[in-house]
Amino acid sequence: MSKYEDVVNLALRRSIFFPSSEIYPSAPAGMFDYGPYGASIKRKVVDIWRKELVQKENFLEIEGAQIMPVDVFKASGHLKSFNDPIVKCSKCNSIYRADKLLGEKTGKEFPEAMPVEEYDKEIKANNIKCPKCKGSLNKTVLFNLMVKAELGIKSMVDCFLRPETCQSIFLDFSRLNKTMRIKLPVGISQVGRSFRNEISPRQTLLRSVEFSQMETEIFFDPDKIDVIENFDEVKDYEISIQRQGSHGVELISAGKLVEDKIVSGKLVAYYLARVQQLYEKYGIPLDSMRFREVSKDDRAFYSKETWDFEVKTSVGWLELIANNYRTDFDLKGHMQASNQDMQYVYPDGKKLIPHVYEISIGVDRTFYAVLEHSYKEEKKKDEKRIFLSLPSGLAPISAAVFPLLSNKPEIVKKSKKVYDLLNSCYEVFFDSSGSIGKRYARMDEIGCPFCITIDFDSLENDDVTIRERDSTEQKRVKIKDLQNALFMLVTGMKKIKDF
Amino acid sequence: MSKYEDVVNLALRRSIFFPSSEIYPSAPAGMFDYGPYGASIKRKVVDIWRKELVQKENFLEIEGAQIMPVDVFKASGHLKSFNDPIVKCSKCNSIYRADKLLGEKTGKEFPEAMPVEEYDKEIKANNIKCPKCKGSLNKTVLFNLMVKAELGIKSMVDCFLRPETCQSIFLDFSRLNKTMRIKLPVGISQVGRSFRNEISPRQTLLRSVEFSQMETEIFFDPDKIDVIENFDEVKDYEISIQRQGSHGVELISAGKLVEDKIVSGKLVAYYLARVQQLYEKYGIPLDSMRFREVSKDDRAFYSKETWDFEVKTSVGWLELIANNYRTDFDLKGHMQASNQDMQYVYPDGKKLIPHVYEISIGVDRTFYAVLEHSYKEEKKKDEKRIFLSLPSGLAPISAAVFPLLSNKPEIVKKSKKVYDLLNSCYEVFFDSSGSIGKRYARMDEIGCPFCITIDFDSLENDDVTIRERDSTEQKRVKIKDLQNALFMLVTGMKKIKDF
Repeated sequence: MSKYEDVVNLALRRSIFFPSSEIYPSAPAGMFDYGPYGASIKRKVVDIWRKELVQKENFLEIEGAQIMPVDVFKASGHLKSFNDPIVKCSKCNSIYRADKLLGEKTGKEFPEAMPVEEYDKEIKANNIKCPKCKGSLNKTVLFNLMVKAELGIKSMVDCFLRPETCQSIFLDFSRLNKTMRIKLPVGISQVGRSFRNEISPRQTLLRSVEFSQMETEIFFDPDKIDVIENFDEVKDYEISIQRQGSHGVELISAGKLVEDKIVSGKLVAYYLARVQQLYEKYGIPLDSMRFREVSKDDRAFYSKETWDFEVKTSVGWLELIANNYRTDFDLKGHMQASNQDMQYVYPDGKKLIPHVYEISIGVDRTFYAVLEHSYKEEKKKDEKRIFLSLPSGLAPISAAVFPLLSNKPEIVKKSKKVYDLLNSCYEVFFDSSGSIGKRYARMDEIGCPFCITIDFDSLENDDVTIRERDSTEQKRVKIKDLQNALFMLVTGMKKIKDF
Repeated sequence: MSKYEDVVNLALRRSIFFPSSEIYPSAPAGMFDYGPYGASIKRKVVDIWRKELVQKENFLEIEGAQIMPVDVFKASGHLKSFNDPIVKCSKCNSIYRADKLLGEKTGKEFPEAMPVEEYDKEIKANNIKCPKCKGSLNKTVLFNLMVKAELGIKSMVDCFLRPETCQSIFLDFSRLNKTMRIKLPVGISQVGRSFRNEISPRQTLLRSVEFSQMETEIFFDPDKIDVIENFDEVKDYEISIQRQGSHGVELISAGKLVEDKIVSGKLVAYYLARVQQLYEKYGIPLDSMRFREVSKDDRAFYSKETWDFEVKTSVGWLELIANNYRTDFDLKGHMQASNQDMQYVYPDGKKLIPHVYEISIGVDRTFYAVLEHSYKEEKKKDEKRIFLSLPSGLAPISAAVFPLLSNKPEIVKKSKKVYDLLNSCYEVFFDSSGSIGKRYARMDEIGCPFCITIDFDSLENDDVTIRERDSTEQKRVKIKDLQNALFMLVTGMKKIKDF
């Protein structure tokens, strides 16, 4: 069984995530609900992004509507170009993605964006038939990936669910620029849901119809791409880079990326560094991260430079972030389509359509990568222990409180007191059912870093046992010192062995 | 100008919220984006709910998909009953809500859920014509309020955007019940977007198409409605109650509500108390809150008991929360439709379809109520000062840092140092442009509680001026004491006058 399957099994067993509306067979594929532990970890992924990137960099965070009118997507190019090539079987009506089907049948890789005739030529050349009924395939057609929202009476208004959160950032730049006296460079961020009409959603959270993004668009003057106030902080910081055409990864400092003109300027190198630092906080090891330079053929036509941030997982290198230098494509497009002046005006009256550098992060994929990288199995004697070694800032609960024997009222009473003591400052969980071993196992599997047990000795000595998730080491701590001890442990200022 | 208009004007001026996709004339009505300050306040509204209600009460918080299949809404009754009565002009095709049009024209109130023939009768009796062209009106028809999402190719899958977040809570109860060994009573919560196809969205955030809810469904055994562990904590706490038929509000303790059988049991009284306490944290004064008992005719047919939590505003008493005793309607409906056993099983094998008590909170309306109640105007001499007297836990930024003179490098440098000192612990904002008066005014209008100014004296004495938003009082504080001072001020442990 692959690690991916291990993680999904764990997720289902502990309700970390699971198919949405699953009690109904008619539920569409590619939709997931996060259960209590999953929702908590996901929120913490977002909180760390907000703290470490948005707030440290003084980005402005907005929250836009998810339904947007068709004119937005005419201007952005989504209506015309946001398509998958699909083929339909002439006999059984089954539908396939042309690029994926070709890939599976030939073992080669096909781009998503070839002209449709090219797919037809390849299908013919390779004599590809319907995998289900061997029927012949109709011509390839383009299928738009946006989900239409039927708004108003008789669809008076032509609207779509946004396929990415960034369009409201571009639109709102107009108002923020006028009302908030912003100064370039300025980042505007948003976290929220996006929707893509995947015809074959797969791999649970990795390619779903409804998903979450944390996006930032940094608006800047291209003449000042090298004017970055805090660049010196990252100058010598080494970034994991895979250059175009190369199969290996090099560690290159931000300073050297600029010096050797591997990136367009300091702004790009600076934010590659900041992104890598963010993923260090998420607990992803450096040798499992890379920024892959995307070739001109493979990147979006408006992008001058693209670095896909990828994390190594059991299903291969997984793209979590698109880092795109989008130039003035977006603002220019919306200015033309809306006939609004969205230019930035310098104090001296000089006008400018700012350029945009984008950091577009997939939340669910980041969540998955965090889960897989923290998933650990340990064999001791004949027993297998599974635990999530989550960084403490991502654990869904800080500590669990167990009365050793749940049929001893004094022990239960003391345990509740301990629980109440901690509940005012931490997210704690009380569990009195099943053997201690089972209770430990449940907490290990959801990544709870500390379990606190109250036993007979606790009644006499006014102390508890604290057990650390990763080492399973245990120490006794006086209840009067417990709040302080947990603070030291949760913040990582002390390890259990230091007690 | 009404206070509602004052608040909306302020919101637009400071980009707190504004119409979504506004640069396009085709943008649908009833959609709003939250700008940086608004998004921050809204997040804090949610954070306080999570801390004060969800976490204190040990509710489980999930995060479900927004798109759900039609079967969910067949079972929930939305497909059949979630309608508005509408009439169309036979001449100009304008569309109106029958109940609203009747209300406007007759000055009387008409329920939303009369049989359609009744509306037609009233329209005829009152000789109501199209307000735009005086044309005669067609027959009233029912218009379903759910927004359809076109998923899959050729709408292979019949799906809707959820009209309320609670349906995933009911569906997921099935899995959580089986995998998380939950014990009744248990609350399951969710915060997220919902969508309603309002034909006449109005009053900005108060009736929009896309909106946010924070919902909790408490699953319990109806035989144990009076077994509430912490009831004594609220027994003597007085709740603002408006009983059916009465026009006035009475303060009745939770204990008395139970004793006099005004509510179905302790569980209901307990959560009415908790909700009122939550809104005290939001800064809503007690005399502007009430729980209005909803009569049998006006509440949903499945609800055994409904208390609408309303807040007094310039547009009247505004419903922010529906507190519904939904009985076993939801679980029973989904069990029948899905053929799944969702019953709760007691350790002794006894089975039960839990009853549900719901706390369904409108986030945007709560946000609006907070804004309106904190909106203050003060006249001093000929000047008008506008400020948002937000409780400190809701302020979008904790403090602003101003160099008195932005053309003095020593002052700017020292100000940046102060900014960096505070930025590690607080959300601070740096502003060096415009007169000090203007900078104060901008911060007052977004509810920033403290402004810190660095001037010539600061260079010599190593101190700053702190100005408090509500009193405008100012005190000088040494920079070395500043972090500590701000902590005392932000937490409310000290007032500026105590320095």
